Amino acid sequence: MEIPEIEKLLHDYGSLADLELKKFIPQEAEGLIGKNLNEPIWYHMGTGGKRIRPAFCLLTCEALGGKKEGALPFAVAVELLHNMLLLHDDIEDGDRIRRDSPTVWVKYGVPNAVNAGDYMVGKAYDSILRSGLPDKTKLKLIDIFTLTYIRTGEGQALDINYRASPDFRIEDYLQIAELKTAYYLVFALVGGAIVAGASDKVIEKIWALGKNLGPAFQIRDDIIDLTVGKGRGGEIGCDIREGKPSILFAHALSKANPADKSMLVKVMAKPRDETTKEDIEWAIRLYKRTGSMDFAQEYAEKLIKDAFEVIDAIPLRNKQVFKDIALYIAERSK
Amino acid sequence: MEIPEIEKLLHDYGSLADLELKKFIPQEAEGLIGKNLNEPIWYHMGTGGKRIRPAFCLLTCEALGGKKEGALPFAVAVELLHNMLLLHDDIEDGDRIRRDSPTVWVKYGVPNAVNAGDYMVGKAYDSILRSGLPDKTKLKLIDIFTLTYIRTGEGQALDINYRASPDFRIEDYLQIAELKTAYYLVFALVGGAIVAGASDKVIEKIWALGKNLGPAFQIRDDIIDLTVGKGRGGEIGCDIREGKPSILFAHALSKANPADKSMLVKVMAKPRDETTKEDIEWAIRLYKRTGSMDFAQEYAEKLIKDAFEVIDAIPLRNKQVFKDIALYIAERSK
Repeated sequence: MEIPEIEKLLHDYGSLADLELKKFIPQEAEGLIGKNLNEPIWYHMGTGGKRIRPAFCLLTCEALGGKKEGALPFAVAVELLHNMLLLHDDIEDGDRIRRDSPTVWVKYGVPNAVNAGDYMVGKAYDSILRSGLPDKTKLKLIDIFTLTYIRTGEGQALDINYRASPDFRIEDYLQIAELKTAYYLVFALVGGAIVAGASDKVIEKIWALGKNLGPAFQIRDDIIDLTVGKGRGGEIGCDIREGKPSILFAHALSKANPADKSMLVKVMAKPRDETTKEDIEWAIRLYKRTGSMDFAQEYAEKLIKDAFEVIDAIPLRNKQVFKDIALYIAERSK
Repeated sequence: MEIPEIEKLLHDYGSLADLELKKFIPQEAEGLIGKNLNEPIWYHMGTGGKRIRPAFCLLTCEALGGKKEGALPFAVAVELLHNMLLLHDDIEDGDRIRRDSPTVWVKYGVPNAVNAGDYMVGKAYDSILRSGLPDKTKLKLIDIFTLTYIRTGEGQALDINYRASPDFRIEDYLQIAELKTAYYLVFALVGGAIVAGASDKVIEKIWALGKNLGPAFQIRDDIIDLTVGKGRGGEIGCDIREGKPSILFAHALSKANPADKSMLVKVMAKPRDETTKEDIEWAIRLYKRTGSMDFAQEYAEKLIKDAFEVIDAIPLRNKQVFKDIALYIAERSK
């Protein structure tokens, strides 16, 4: 199976999950609740969203011999959590633009944005509770959902507070990536496996996959921010503007001379509006000079290689689907 | 049993829940996670907190023939949700002071405050999941927790967006109180009943109690804001400053002459920093002139009377405990 084929599968399964999502949270609802919950939620989720994570969930369920329909309620929960985290992240990061449009807190105000995110978490649990799956399965799904949600919060606590920190190291980066991305990226797959009735051993291996794919995804995300931008009006270097602890920041801190190091921290610590285009260009040049861009790229590639080895050890009907998912995550992270 | 006796019970059972909470989320933890999650959470929850809601949960469990120890994990979840909602509310309302201290977002920043609240929800679910209760019981508890969390979000969407609205009616007020307070106030009791193995019929009656106690609590809260203040440095009239849709606002809008009505909306719509002491005094005088203070007081008393009738229909070992709880909620809402 080539990449284009996985893309078609992701598209078809994503559409299925999207339909389910629209049944579960109506795009239009009456009164102030409709206007201040349903509307901002759908504004944020995008009516034509790709729903890649839900598609991962359904594909995994099938690859392990389960029926994808049974995994739909969890797929919906995954997508709600994903979007809720982005929604609250935008508030926390002060991001005003996402996917070239104003973020929810800019358009609907911080109070509605905080509340809509909270509500999405409740609805995600609700989706699992209403799934009609056996009690044991429901509880397992709620368990991994909760674990993921907690770990993401811990990772976020590090992420927020390592901003522009001169003490930030590669190992701190990897800790954040594990907490914030590893769980969050593979819990969709784990959920699919649980619905399929996979053994604890298989489920363990899928979690292990996250330890490679999570950081790989995060690193690619860091690189994309410096090359093509993250869909915030094509702007390059948002992470530098925000002082975000990227792998490039961690690596450059460990390699740069004292003067460059102190200059880098200064650039990262500037309020976002005071960071100039020249600052960003300077930081990117530094990242190249210190070999940080190459280091990041190679590190991500190694993680993918390791992920493939983990996949080879999973008793799957169709290993290629998993490898395609892994590649997809690593290569096209948005 | 007289009020002082219920106070002792609430104190003892609250202390039990407090101990459990401290075991579940350590007051001190290492590194940036400790500093940016555990620390703000405990700063907010107050190390000497009264834990009244958890006490309600344990008392209900016992009054229905259950063991209070079994209800402890849910009592912890209740307290976490209660505090998380206050924490996010403070961000949403722009409140800078709670219990005479700076609010979490003021002290730790909005990013950490949003994240800490999210994390508390995850930990609340985690507490139920780790309870060791039978699967069926766990799922029932997760179900009512989720229902409550969702309804509170819907109520909050109304609450935020009815601020200073000239169209605000008593029926809108009661809808908010039901969504925001009724579930949230009695789900602690319902959880205790579920752990005790109460029948669906009894559980239904306890929910019904919320429909009286929730609004009664909210109305008392509205009155307290205008008489003794809500513990924000003893300040009177915070709700007027914030334009909050109180029962007094709804009632006065329905009774005042057009000039007073338009003046009241103007006062409520003012940014909080521009609302003067004179504005607040004027609004309180208006609330008295329109009979809104008396209306609110009498309405709350009627709700309590109705609550007592509901309690009489519940097959309890000790009805008085419930009546004392009802009175406690209505009379000492903070």
